[in-house]
Amino acid sequence: CGRPALLDIMSFLIPGVFSLAHCLVGEGGERTVLGAFFACYVDHFGFLENRTFQQRYLIADQYWKKDGGSILFYTGNEGDITWFCNNTGFMWEVAEELNAMLVFAEHRYYGESLPFGNKSFSDSKHLNYLTSEQALADFAILIQHIRKTIPGAQNTPVIAIGGSYGGMLAAWLRMKYPHVVDGALAASAPIWQFEDLVPCGVFSRIVTNDFKKSGKGCSESIRNSWEAIKRISSTGNQLPMPPQHLCSSKNCISQAVCTVTLWVISHHFLPLDLPLQVACKFLKDPSLSDKLLLQNIFQAINIYYNYSGVASCLNISHTATKNLGEAGWYYQVCTEMVMPMCTDGVNDMFEPEKWDFQAFSEECFKLWGVRPRPSWILSVYGGKNISSHSNIIFSNGGLDPWSGGGVTQNITNSLVAIVIPEGAHHLDLRSSNPCDPESVRQARALEVHYMKQWIGKARQRH
Amino acid sequence: CGRPALLDIMSFLIPGVFSLAHCLVGEGGERTVLGAFFACYVDHFGFLENRTFQQRYLIADQYWKKDGGSILFYTGNEGDITWFCNNTGFMWEVAEELNAMLVFAEHRYYGESLPFGNKSFSDSKHLNYLTSEQALADFAILIQHIRKTIPGAQNTPVIAIGGSYGGMLAAWLRMKYPHVVDGALAASAPIWQFEDLVPCGVFSRIVTNDFKKSGKGCSESIRNSWEAIKRISSTGNQLPMPPQHLCSSKNCISQAVCTVTLWVISHHFLPLDLPLQVACKFLKDPSLSDKLLLQNIFQAINIYYNYSGVASCLNISHTATKNLGEAGWYYQVCTEMVMPMCTDGVNDMFEPEKWDFQAFSEECFKLWGVRPRPSWILSVYGGKNISSHSNIIFSNGGLDPWSGGGVTQNITNSLVAIVIPEGAHHLDLRSSNPCDPESVRQARALEVHYMKQWIGKARQRH
Repeated sequence: CGRPALLDIMSFLIPGVFSLAHCLVGEGGERTVLGAFFACYVDHFGFLENRTFQQRYLIADQYWKKDGGSILFYTGNEGDITWFCNNTGFMWEVAEELNAMLVFAEHRYYGESLPFGNKSFSDSKHLNYLTSEQALADFAILIQHIRKTIPGAQNTPVIAIGGSYGGMLAAWLRMKYPHVVDGALAASAPIWQFEDLVPCGVFSRIVTNDFKKSGKGCSESIRNSWEAIKRISSTGNQLPMPPQHLCSSKNCISQAVCTVTLWVISHHFLPLDLPLQVACKFLKDPSLSDKLLLQNIFQAINIYYNYSGVASCLNISHTATKNLGEAGWYYQVCTEMVMPMCTDGVNDMFEPEKWDFQAFSEECFKLWGVRPRPSWILSVYGGKNISSHSNIIFSNGGLDPWSGGGVTQNITNSLVAIVIPEGAHHLDLRSSNPCDPESVRQARALEVHYMKQWIGKARQRH
Repeated sequence: CGRPALLDIMSFLIPGVFSLAHCLVGEGGERTVLGAFFACYVDHFGFLENRTFQQRYLIADQYWKKDGGSILFYTGNEGDITWFCNNTGFMWEVAEELNAMLVFAEHRYYGESLPFGNKSFSDSKHLNYLTSEQALADFAILIQHIRKTIPGAQNTPVIAIGGSYGGMLAAWLRMKYPHVVDGALAASAPIWQFEDLVPCGVFSRIVTNDFKKSGKGCSESIRNSWEAIKRISSTGNQLPMPPQHLCSSKNCISQAVCTVTLWVISHHFLPLDLPLQVACKFLKDPSLSDKLLLQNIFQAINIYYNYSGVASCLNISHTATKNLGEAGWYYQVCTEMVMPMCTDGVNDMFEPEKWDFQAFSEECFKLWGVRPRPSWILSVYGGKNISSHSNIIFSNGGLDPWSGGGVTQNITNSLVAIVIPEGAHHLDLRSSNPCDPESVRQARALEVHYMKQWIGKARQRH
């Protein structure tokens, strides 16, 4: 099989590798969904700003049964919702078994759900309503709206489902609005990647281990490449990089960008299934000369580019204007989604770099005119003290660097962790595939088991 | 005994009867507390407004024991926190038994906790951060701060306690921040007095029943007085009211004011223990002539005024500038704390008046430039679907009209209701008194029982 596990970690090293799949809305085929909009308050937590905006959601009711059915509600994350609709095959596959209505709700400030249209990203005033709390309120009110307006849906149990940041939102939606959702599947949701709940280096260590496992000499080659880049750059020589991959900023391939990339790009769903092994085939000998080493690195990158169809490197500094989805996530990272990252060059293959909150805060202030509040997420969502909540599955891929900030052990009978050793970032949410490892099959079955249980209990209450 | 039950319902009919008791901060005696301030973000839910303000809290640690102790945290409501400190004798009386540190946290926009000083009430822009959600976040962060900074308090269990709106906040704090408080005592908290969860006339019906019980002819006299006022006013004759009680607005004693008063004034803690029976002694004969009937009504009012020491009737239209505490509550009522009230003149002693949301909304817009959102409280706090939460006591006074919107039946093993048949508005939170009915003694004992249980369980977890 060509895809033993989704391993899209290479993209952590290269910015700008993701692109949206085409939109299925209104198209034929099995996965037909209807696009709809719902008027939502721009500000749920204040009354001065009284405008509403159109929140988009996709809805598929062909599998839904009024009696004994359920609603699977995807808590959209940082991107166009059609992408998540297309890439969350798991929901489509279990819809029939659960007689489920599928709803994919777009996160405000992404896709077409822009509170102020083109101006949504123009300044910190317009961005002020881009928070997870506002998004959760959007979701809660949308669910209540759906239940109220669709005949027969009034008492239908709802399970929230999401991956990555969307997984955090699914878990938090259950924690904060248990009257709205009866349970949550939080796939690869690093809800503990904040403040000092986990070591800031855990992400880099897992990335490095993945490279180590993917080929002899691979992680060492990458570790050595940073010095090689510096040495060649300092002599004024050209980096042996194909022109189409060169960034306008000479820093694009540097350590700084990589570190940024680690925690920015890797948030996104990554549509590529490039096995790390293929890249590592070029990186067997870490002891090569600088030039040869870098040529190999770039050959690995090249394959990656060809595979992804992304022609040119993303220029980080233009992010805000180039790609709205990314601008939004940058803003979130600079306000409440502050996930400390660091490298030490010993336990990981990166140049040592401490987590420098002060510098980070300055950068955020320069970019957006706002200051991050690193402890807020813990205050509002509870950090590690979440045992009084219930009905949440936390699934994790053993190969996924985000598992370092995830919940990987059961907390209570109904706050359960699933680890998929051969899985990367929320593999369990993808369509099933003949090449899937047994562990992900079992994970999906267990997830369905819990969902059925919670749906059944919720039905008894009504 | 002169105080068989606190029955301060008369004040519903007359605005402006409450005044703050003197401040105990820094004084000697058993109830010595320290006043302190904590810097809190003005806006927890957005990052554009980055200023902080000084939130006041009172703290008494003379009963606290580091080992085996607890923190009783009063979730301040709409008023100066010293008032609640002075009038929540229950907390002082159980402090020793629970080895408890007492904390009384002031609600933002009340007392000395003004986010923008004198300008806090100047317009809807400055008032924009006056919401229950912001207040809960203040409380949660303050508790985390106390636990972090007071040596030995790190793992001390916390019970939230509040009455009336403060009781709602205590319950909601447990629901939204269960990682911060281990349980809550929500005394006389009408968390269901929203939208259509309870009939809008339930409040007026309970008030009327209280008057009925307090003397033959009493409620009928009041019911008849409305027409009597109209008839005398329409002939151009003077109302038989002592001049010092006359309002500048002729409507002050009218039905409209009464209805407003019902849901505004009655929110406040009422410092008066006037037994309704005394007032009803003047109102035995509802069949008197208009003039005699009103003379009796005003004699009853007169006693009330003399008792309370309030010399003149409050002019409602000046509320916003006269009394900051009231202005704040008016704003809250006009935004998220929308509690529908109505009268029918049949099941209650008031003139029939439907709940007119549209008119209410217009009035709010005129006053504050904001529109109420009547369904938000249900969306955010769950309405009647709160069974997944835990560790909350809802106590109610059988005579308290707010019990109509309260939780009066157990929901689960740990969401428990206590009804005190002879009690009025959160009698259980007051100091014990030889005249207390047995029911309130039992209620307090049961409350302590539950608190001990939750404190014990919380301690096991640490």
